[in-house]
Amino acid sequence: TAPLTFLAGPCQLESRDHALMIAEAMAKICAANGAGFVFKASYDKANRTSLTGKRGLGIDAGLEVLAAVKAEIGCPVVTDVHAPDQCAKVAEVVDILQIPAFLCRQTDLLLAAGETGRAVNVKKGQFLAPWDMPNVAAKIASTGNENILLCERGTSFGYNTLVADMRALPQMAATGYPVVMDATHSVQQPGGLGGASGGQREFAPLMARSAAAIGVAAIFMETHEDPDRAPSDGPNMVPLDRMGALVASLMQFDRLAKADPFTL
Amino acid sequence: TAPLTFLAGPCQLESRDHALMIAEAMAKICAANGAGFVFKASYDKANRTSLTGKRGLGIDAGLEVLAAVKAEIGCPVVTDVHAPDQCAKVAEVVDILQIPAFLCRQTDLLLAAGETGRAVNVKKGQFLAPWDMPNVAAKIASTGNENILLCERGTSFGYNTLVADMRALPQMAATGYPVVMDATHSVQQPGGLGGASGGQREFAPLMARSAAAIGVAAIFMETHEDPDRAPSDGPNMVPLDRMGALVASLMQFDRLAKADPFTL
Amino acid sequence: TAPLTFLAGPCQLESRDHALMIAEAMAKICAANGAGFVFKASYDKANRTSLTGKRGLGIDAGLEVLAAVKAEIGCPVVTDVHAPDQCAKVAEVVDILQIPAFLCRQTDLLLAAGETGRAVNVKKGQFLAPWDMPNVAAKIASTGNENILLCERGTSFGYNTLVADMRALPQMAATGYPVVMDATHSVQQPGGLGGASGGQREFAPLMARSAAAIGVAAIFMETHEDPDRAPSDGPNMVPLDRMGALVASLMQFDRLAKADPFTL
Amino acid sequence: TAPLTFLAGPCQLESRDHALMIAEAMAKICAANGAGFVFKASYDKANRTSLTGKRGLGIDAGLEVLAAVKAEIGCPVVTDVHAPDQCAKVAEVVDILQIPAFLCRQTDLLLAAGETGRAVNVKKGQFLAPWDMPNVAAKIASTGNENILLCERGTSFGYNTLVADMRALPQMAATGYPVVMDATHSVQQPGGLGGASGGQREFAPLMARSAAAIGVAAIFMETHEDPDRAPSDGPNMVPLDRMGALVASLMQFDRLAKADPFTL
Repeated sequence: TAPLTFLAGPCQLESRDHALMIAEAMAKICAANGAGFVFKASYDKANRTSLTGKRGLGIDAGLEVLAAVKAEIGCPVVTDVHAPDQCAKVAEVVDILQIPAFLCRQTDLLLAAGETGRAVNVKKGQFLAPWDMPNVAAKIASTGNENILLCERGTSFGYNTLVADMRALPQMAATGYPVVMDATHSVQQPGGLGGASGGQREFAPLMARSAAAIGVAAIFMETHEDPDRAPSDGPNMVPLDRMGALVASLMQFDRLAKADPFTL
Repeated sequence: TAPLTFLAGPCQLESRDHALMIAEAMAKICAANGAGFVFKASYDKANRTSLTGKRGLGIDAGLEVLAAVKAEIGCPVVTDVHAPDQCAKVAEVVDILQIPAFLCRQTDLLLAAGETGRAVNVKKGQFLAPWDMPNVAAKIASTGNENILLCERGTSFGYNTLVADMRALPQMAATGYPVVMDATHSVQQPGGLGGASGGQREFAPLMARSAAAIGVAAIFMETHEDPDRAPSDGPNMVPLDRMGALVASLMQFDRLAKADPFTL
Repeated sequence: TAPLTFLAGPCQLESRDHALMIAEAMAKICAANGAGFVFKASYDKANRTSLTGKRGLGIDAGLEVLAAVKAEIGCPVVTDVHAPDQCAKVAEVVDILQIPAFLCRQTDLLLAAGETGRAVNVKKGQFLAPWDMPNVAAKIASTGNENILLCERGTSFGYNTLVADMRALPQMAATGYPVVMDATHSVQQPGGLGGASGGQREFAPLMARSAAAIGVAAIFMETHEDPDRAPSDGPNMVPLDRMGALVASLMQFDRLAKADPFTL
Repeated sequence: TAPLTFLAGPCQLESRDHALMIAEAMAKICAANGAGFVFKASYDKANRTSLTGKRGLGIDAGLEVLAAVKAEIGCPVVTDVHAPDQCAKVAEVVDILQIPAFLCRQTDLLLAAGETGRAVNVKKGQFLAPWDMPNVAAKIASTGNENILLCERGTSFGYNTLVADMRALPQMAATGYPVVMDATHSVQQPGGLGGASGGQREFAPLMARSAAAIGVAAIFMETHEDPDRAPSDGPNMVPLDRMGALVASLMQFDRLAKADPFTL
């Protein structure tokens, strides 16, 4: 099994320069540690807690920036899609289409994403059990596209709180599809700041480590050079200047885990 | 405060005759008991648990049937919308646009629904706290449309289970918007049958009663003449032949509750 | 079926005069409304959140006060027991022995309580499902004592939060034992104040109403003339001066519910 | 920081020979891998799901067996106490007194355990947040005994299900007390078999691994040579013949974690 891949980047695209800066930094870190890298950023935050939250560059400007990242950094890119009619357009540029958690059961979106032939990373809804995900994957696979990733990002646990059930990782892996651990959204506190989501970024490395020790295929982490000023999801982001040490550490756990797969 | 209104009908539109049969039966029951009535049915079940679940008549045929119900039965109708570009079209026929729970934070859908000027019934997501709903309502209200209803339909409680927190009803009512209790979806067991959702229809009257005793504006209930053969949500539907007694009983609780509002 | 009984009183015994004052007030309110009444107060709060929380009068002084309430007010009394060796002694005075929620699976305590021959009110643990309670009742019933009450007091829902699942009431009633709704502890916020539990007393009447509308046998409510100064559970108590109106209102819902039992 | 210690053994004491057999096997495994070892077994299962569940040897016979394990195997032992008056007696033999999760807020039990001067391992209640545990530890510490361990064993998550929130490990470690991960009870399904608890033993190694990767002080695991015939908790136990490989693997994660402590 391949070494860990990191899906990493800022929550939302802020500008061409900003995206290139983060992509370059992360690409170097991942290369230096033998890890795969996919740049992640969103062109539209379509479900902000409140109307005043910034939504991002929009699809056209966003895809231009993602294309620039691919061209200049040479890495694949992932971004989320929110409506069926965005999929084909996004797929012209993007390597992995991501289905947001709230939308993970919207049949038309899953089919449209699958039909692009691009890889599809589906975030497990906060309202779903791990064993509900084969039904989700089957919608995509019905298009003939088996290039599917399943992503854990936390489950509703009371109000304004998520919990990451580590059992979900092997349960989803039993489908045969690669499993991604979203280490930053699983420590999000949805709506926890009233008009925005809070987060516990101090625990993101813990989520990543636990998942690496179990042997996941990929880890998703949002990162920013100044999380407290990020336009979205700052409270759960990992500061960019900590990513080098974190990736290096996680790769050690990954090597150990993959040399000694978890079973009973 | 006005007597209870019932938003009731089959989960999905099956045919013109079927819709008319249920609408007529429910209109008579509600009129006989001094209750308001809005016919509810969906033209598309856009997020079925699995791909093989029936989705319904589609938007064009569905709106024709809903128009027929309005014309022949003389009652208002409510149906759910799944994408921004459906809203204007649906609003030509439908009195209340309903936002599905999974989509309750999709900003563009909320804005498009608000912009129609029609009433908008938003189901609280299974992943939201009651106090998150003012942010949702504010998205709609930003369009100048204050004709908003907020609907409780259960909150994620472990896997494949929902729980209805009765505190959500007064908490949402504090917004000033009318509150709807969805008595049938709050006893749904999402994904509980593997490839479909299960349900505990035997407890739907309990949810309705508790809510009536608290003094909600409206109760949402799906009903069918043969729930075990309904194409969707049968396990949590109330049989049509029980609706007469149930509505009559609930109106008694409603009168008592509204004569003696709940406060401390 | 008999009209509602109220199990009501302060959380903990504070003094003879205080207990008599509350018992007298509640006895009058219940008599005036045709409701049953059992005075409730604890002689020991054996599981306070923190060590500094007041524990109460202790078993000897406490039982003296409870005996005085019985003698002077003429009502039955209920109090909780925490260890098997307290049961026989408490049963000399008390009409209903109450098993605290955390202790509801401690076999020896359940057996000792059952063996007294007194009625036993078991609070369902915050960690139990309604369908787990027949196993609990069977432990008591194994002593030959079938005088058992089963009490809902909320279920763990994330951290520091409880939720009352109204389905638990008919599910527990299916055992044939009378069901009690604890309307004040089900709005407790365990540990919510750091060194003590918080509460949402404003929602206690809502819990009571929902339960009355479903037709429970009894409602448990803690009350105090000045809840903000009560030595324990003040945040979720109902002020004594609101109990008259609340009991009167609940009796109306009770009559309606029992004339028209909930079924589907 | 010291290498991992394993608190391991059968759920309940079955016989002297059985205890010695498991203690000897585990002691060898731990010694061979540089791990600490404490033999764990209960003399009384005081809160079985149902009355028919076996409770064990009882305190007198149980303490004799535990003394034999200490004498013949030369390892420390841990067992749980259920009532204050058991503590002093148990402390004559046992090195670590364990407070069961349901009883973790019973003040008198915590004080009595603390007063023995022996180490006290408190299981976090399924109904508590990690940040509630300092209040629990403070009760023990009030006796002057700071030899306290805090143990994660899963939190209520809907009905009949627990979830292990890995954030609890560093949150409890912030107290300064060593943290124990109970890898087998955190995959228990309380009441999940109707008259007994179910479990997912296949995920116990996952819980242990995640915790080792985070750098806990100790791992608690119940083990049996034939879990399907164990008198209690069989469904979540690790077969004894798998413990060698599991301990060896966990020690690798432990060394990595402790060389590179988790922080952000």
